[in-house]
Amino acid sequence: MKLATYKDGSRDGQVVVVSRDLASAHYATGIADRLQQALDDWNFISPQLQDLYETLNGGKARHAFPFDPAQCMAPLPRAYQWADGSAYINHVELVRLARNSKVPDNYYTEPLMYQGGSDDFLGPRDDALFITEDWGIDFEAEVAVITGDVPMGTSPDQALGGIRLVMIANDWSLRHLIPDELAKSFGFFQSKPATAFSPVAVTPDELGDTWQDGKLALTLQSQWNGRTVGMCDAGQEMTFHFGQLIAHICKTRNVRAGSIVGSGTVSNRAVEKDGKKEWVKGYSCIAEKRAIETILDGKPGTDYMKFGDTIKIEMKGKDGQSVFGAIEQKVVQAKAK
Amino acid sequence: MKLATYKDGSRDGQVVVVSRDLASAHYATGIADRLQQALDDWNFISPQLQDLYETLNGGKARHAFPFDPAQCMAPLPRAYQWADGSAYINHVELVRLARNSKVPDNYYTEPLMYQGGSDDFLGPRDDALFITEDWGIDFEAEVAVITGDVPMGTSPDQALGGIRLVMIANDWSLRHLIPDELAKSFGFFQSKPATAFSPVAVTPDELGDTWQDGKLALTLQSQWNGRTVGMCDAGQEMTFHFGQLIAHICKTRNVRAGSIVGSGTVSNRAVEKDGKKEWVKGYSCIAEKRAIETILDGKPGTDYMKFGDTIKIEMKGKDGQSVFGAIEQKVVQAKAK
Repeated sequence: MKLATYKDGSRDGQVVVVSRDLASAHYATGIADRLQQALDDWNFISPQLQDLYETLNGGKARHAFPFDPAQCMAPLPRAYQWADGSAYINHVELVRLARNSKVPDNYYTEPLMYQGGSDDFLGPRDDALFITEDWGIDFEAEVAVITGDVPMGTSPDQALGGIRLVMIANDWSLRHLIPDELAKSFGFFQSKPATAFSPVAVTPDELGDTWQDGKLALTLQSQWNGRTVGMCDAGQEMTFHFGQLIAHICKTRNVRAGSIVGSGTVSNRAVEKDGKKEWVKGYSCIAEKRAIETILDGKPGTDYMKFGDTIKIEMKGKDGQSVFGAIEQKVVQAKAK
Repeated sequence: MKLATYKDGSRDGQVVVVSRDLASAHYATGIADRLQQALDDWNFISPQLQDLYETLNGGKARHAFPFDPAQCMAPLPRAYQWADGSAYINHVELVRLARNSKVPDNYYTEPLMYQGGSDDFLGPRDDALFITEDWGIDFEAEVAVITGDVPMGTSPDQALGGIRLVMIANDWSLRHLIPDELAKSFGFFQSKPATAFSPVAVTPDELGDTWQDGKLALTLQSQWNGRTVGMCDAGQEMTFHFGQLIAHICKTRNVRAGSIVGSGTVSNRAVEKDGKKEWVKGYSCIAEKRAIETILDGKPGTDYMKFGDTIKIEMKGKDGQSVFGAIEQKVVQAKAK
């Protein structure tokens, strides 16, 4: 099934069930008000949501209305955890290659993850507000999952069973703040402002055979100012699947219902053509484009985003239909306080 | 006023108002069920809680019952943010001095903070479960605040007005997992398991003149296996006050109601006695004791915690009464799954 959260003026919004084709929706009133509530009591609530989903898909839901992604908050407008991986090692390799630094060996055997802020997510059509362009504004197109309860010590395979919902994310990054921040060794903080999520979160069964052992074998499309810059395959080159990412978190603690776990920037290797490397799939963040330019030309040629720029991130199923709806955001200058 | 969250089998527990002397409590039924609810709508709900608090202190609350810290969850059993600073620079200096590494200059001008997991906090009397002692189990006694909404770009002074509640914390750390984790440059993750909080969270007005410009001028006591190891002054030597810590977070994003911000390990400088340094106030984490031993003797002499060890963390007011109630935890081996 497909679920979204409609704006209603409250902090957590209202859960709606969305039809498979994203054409219509129905409030889940009487079943659950907030998505977190459904996640807290998934075994009891999700079958009821599923029934409504089937009625809606059959065109028989009484109070259905046209689904409007502009009315959506993030599926979880705030969450108890946002743990973001860097599961496409090609992304790390590229960025490191551009600065002539070797990828440490353990990056291939153990996921790289950071803990992100989760108190204030952006909806799929919300403007992304920044105080200055000087911070190096960049998008990052990712896949993300929402978990149920996964106890401490769970194995990667078992952890796959804890995945409740799948969505896509735009993990905004402030590139020029990253070097100083990482040099302090405590990880990202100011360099990772509010993340945006797709209009709709879907259950893994909805993804059919494109959901393969914790990887999503579909193409993540990124359009920057209307131009397609990324058509990246999210499946094959994911070095660590979502079960591994979740198990990484719960090595030393429990993961509780409603935790969001991200894949990190989806990234594909170059292909060799006539002896030259070509990054035919494009990129899911500008930092990667700049790394490629540095490798090819000795320096980056593409600037980061400017106020007024737009980014659209979407994933289509085998049938060509949008699976999660599109993230479509504009970069806007925050008003001075 | 003083607020706590009682266990009731649910994920978020039930808010209770606790009397100033921590002797009695009263359910806030009819005012708020969960503490997050009160924080979400503080201006409306907190005066009602305050009324109940005054009635309770006057001995006139009808359904008061003896307050039992063993029935407490963390005041927020799960939160939308747990951002922990390292605001006592002496702690950083000690740890660095022990390994002959200089403290970077910007550590004195800009807070060091990490984003912690906030989906599964421990109550003040909950056992702390770990899979193995080999991870280097350590307590960390801290002061923490819970915020209201603090918008992006707020100044440190303005941010002080966003502090709703103050409490103490035990930020459990797995010391032997830290070096590898920090070397990966993405910050703490597995090395920071579930944090525990004091039974009670209190409003700043409750702290009188011991709450001074975002610092708490009281002594944080730590007893390890019944022996007092720390009597650290939380006020004077706090390099960055809580307004600065909150402003650090909201440089690039909003901070939303219910965010918890920690001070990091409370730590005091050595005093010179007969030309020798003496750390007369003791320590608020074992790592610091080991750093002192390394400075004095060339190597650490104190081991980290073992299964069965206990830790008690408490802060007393000028009147000698416990302000927040005590955190009292036992280190217990997690059962194999």
